[in-house]
Amino acid sequence: MNLELIRAKHRQAAELMSEHGIDTWLIQFGRETGMRPDPLGYLVGGSVTWPSAFLLNRDGSSAAIVGSGDAGTFEAMVVWAEVRAFRNGPGEDLLAVLRRWDPRTLGVTWSASDDTADGITHGMYQVLLALLAGTPWEERIVSAGELAGDVRGIKLPEEVEAIRNAVARTEELLARIESELKPGLTEVQLQREVHRWVREDGHRFSWDEEYCPMVNFGPPAFMGHAGPTDRELRPGDVIHVDIGLIVDGYASDLQRTWYWRRPGEAQAPPDVRRTFEATRAALDAGVAAIRPGVRGHEVDAASRSTVEEWDYPEPGFAFGHGCGQVAHDGGGLLGPQWERYGDAPRFTIKPGNVFAVEMDLEVPEGGGMVGLEEEVVVTPEGATYLSHPQRELKLLG
Amino acid sequence: MNLELIRAKHRQAAELMSEHGIDTWLIQFGRETGMRPDPLGYLVGGSVTWPSAFLLNRDGSSAAIVGSGDAGTFEAMVVWAEVRAFRNGPGEDLLAVLRRWDPRTLGVTWSASDDTADGITHGMYQVLLALLAGTPWEERIVSAGELAGDVRGIKLPEEVEAIRNAVARTEELLARIESELKPGLTEVQLQREVHRWVREDGHRFSWDEEYCPMVNFGPPAFMGHAGPTDRELRPGDVIHVDIGLIVDGYASDLQRTWYWRRPGEAQAPPDVRRTFEATRAALDAGVAAIRPGVRGHEVDAASRSTVEEWDYPEPGFAFGHGCGQVAHDGGGLLGPQWERYGDAPRFTIKPGNVFAVEMDLEVPEGGGMVGLEEEVVVTPEGATYLSHPQRELKLLG
Repeated sequence: MNLELIRAKHRQAAELMSEHGIDTWLIQFGRETGMRPDPLGYLVGGSVTWPSAFLLNRDGSSAAIVGSGDAGTFEAMVVWAEVRAFRNGPGEDLLAVLRRWDPRTLGVTWSASDDTADGITHGMYQVLLALLAGTPWEERIVSAGELAGDVRGIKLPEEVEAIRNAVARTEELLARIESELKPGLTEVQLQREVHRWVREDGHRFSWDEEYCPMVNFGPPAFMGHAGPTDRELRPGDVIHVDIGLIVDGYASDLQRTWYWRRPGEAQAPPDVRRTFEATRAALDAGVAAIRPGVRGHEVDAASRSTVEEWDYPEPGFAFGHGCGQVAHDGGGLLGPQWERYGDAPRFTIKPGNVFAVEMDLEVPEGGGMVGLEEEVVVTPEGATYLSHPQRELKLLG
Repeated sequence: MNLELIRAKHRQAAELMSEHGIDTWLIQFGRETGMRPDPLGYLVGGSVTWPSAFLLNRDGSSAAIVGSGDAGTFEAMVVWAEVRAFRNGPGEDLLAVLRRWDPRTLGVTWSASDDTADGITHGMYQVLLALLAGTPWEERIVSAGELAGDVRGIKLPEEVEAIRNAVARTEELLARIESELKPGLTEVQLQREVHRWVREDGHRFSWDEEYCPMVNFGPPAFMGHAGPTDRELRPGDVIHVDIGLIVDGYASDLQRTWYWRRPGEAQAPPDVRRTFEATRAALDAGVAAIRPGVRGHEVDAASRSTVEEWDYPEPGFAFGHGCGQVAHDGGGLLGPQWERYGDAPRFTIKPGNVFAVEMDLEVPEGGGMVGLEEEVVVTPEGATYLSHPQRELKLLG
């Protein structure tokens, strides 16, 4: 737990609050968060057992209202200016803090479209309504989902460096993977090896180990979140790996593609080469469209129309997603305006946003899977790579 | 993932639904559940990325509505009678299933008082309301929190056996801990040893490793969730350990207390002995009050009044909590009617409930911490131990 970072994020959040019209932000109102982590937990610093409230005021004041059993932990960390311990419940202390701060708006962390800004459960929301019933604050509740998205999504310089570091560790791992590839190796064997290396290094994967890394030797068993199979690597295979690591609390998410030549082949077959070029062109078109003030779906459209120009089937996923504490970090999406994405594609890109940008295309007629994924940070001028982007199809064998 | 158990729990749930007046149960409506597990996830069988719906009808029909990337996983497990894959969003498929089943009530998993039955986030609840807007089901939404609590809380025989097994493994670990205790050992050293053993055995702890096991040599640094310190075990110490393991998906939660004799001491000092006897008496009084039909707070009161009779300060916690997939499993609480517990203490005990029952009392004037915690299963006649209860203060040294 990096307490200095939590304090810096609180300062950043306090500044963003007035922009979002939120006087007091109830960052977290949860219970048993050790069992079910809250997406904003990294601004809190520890888990709680009983229904606990963590509040930030726009003047920078802060208060933690926690059960007596958890008070010692939060007092020791010197992040929360005020730690109030309760035995029976948080209601009385919560009202005491609100009476003192008297906010005109009380932001509660929920979002219909951004899961990493969707902190409060529906049950805890009902508990909150019951505690505030008959008080002035009952009518002053607003969603703090967009605020939470900005706090998550606008990375501080030290957060960008942490992501850059996670990316660098992952690139080392990809180099090691490349050196292990050889005909006869199965997808399952490769994944097992990578699991062993990562455990030895003491890192974690960015998503469910069963699907991390995703490994495709030749055409995938099915599109989507497929685990590895006993398929052996064979000459003539397109080799595709999707992998992410969490290092010191920040995530990476990268994809790389290789081709294993058949005897006598100088390069990959034309349809593999063309698919790689189309993938790279669609990635480049999206990255070129990234700049502050542009909306997420506009970036996605730039990439999506390039795929269409190259005459490949329309991708079934978003071009880019936030990358931060988790590989699918919130705060906006570079995606199409589909129902499942809610409002996320309509957010406006800001400096400090970090995205994983990706394109996957299948080689026609079951020829395999080409995928490229990189991390970029948004500067006032546009997107800058945090990874070393793969520009050419790598030839092996 | 025990698919047979999921099918058995679905059959049990379908039977419990009519008792709760719920025609169709939306067990889970979540997204990115790999990052933030849903408490009902063990009835689902896998994690999802996009907003996905898992429904059970009271006739036993079931449907999973998942993103195209996740469909293969759920088709392969043969748990969900119908798997519907979407690209854009779950709305159309959800309405198609509801039109076919036409439920008079649609149960949604949320609870103000039971965190393990509080599945849906407030944001996803808003997504659901938007999808159902203008349809007949909009007005038919009810809370399925009590149903979820019963499904979690009423254990099938195979679940009881799984908990008994987790308890047995934990008792073996406690025996090993006892054999390692000696003056000069620090709390931190003991915890580190236990972490090593558990990792070697491939098990997990029931709660945050930082606090598992809790170890107190002599008086605790502070009451509550304190991590171990560099305090050395010394003759004259009361030794207290609180530990839980998750084995094959089910949890234990046990506390044991020892006393290390000073040179020449035949037994523990009178105040330590009296505190142990009071702790045991309060535990016994609570356990004796457990039987089907009794309310949770009545059991707590039986134990709490015994503490008062023995003239110890009132405990600041509940006497018992459900124990199952997690150590703090829901479905009702054997606790006082305090604000922080909501309605949970007013639930009615049923056969098949499994509880961790506990009492902790401090030896007067900083003499140390005595704690006993056991697991019991409720039968038609009352409570039966799943652990081998500690009846006497164990003397060491």
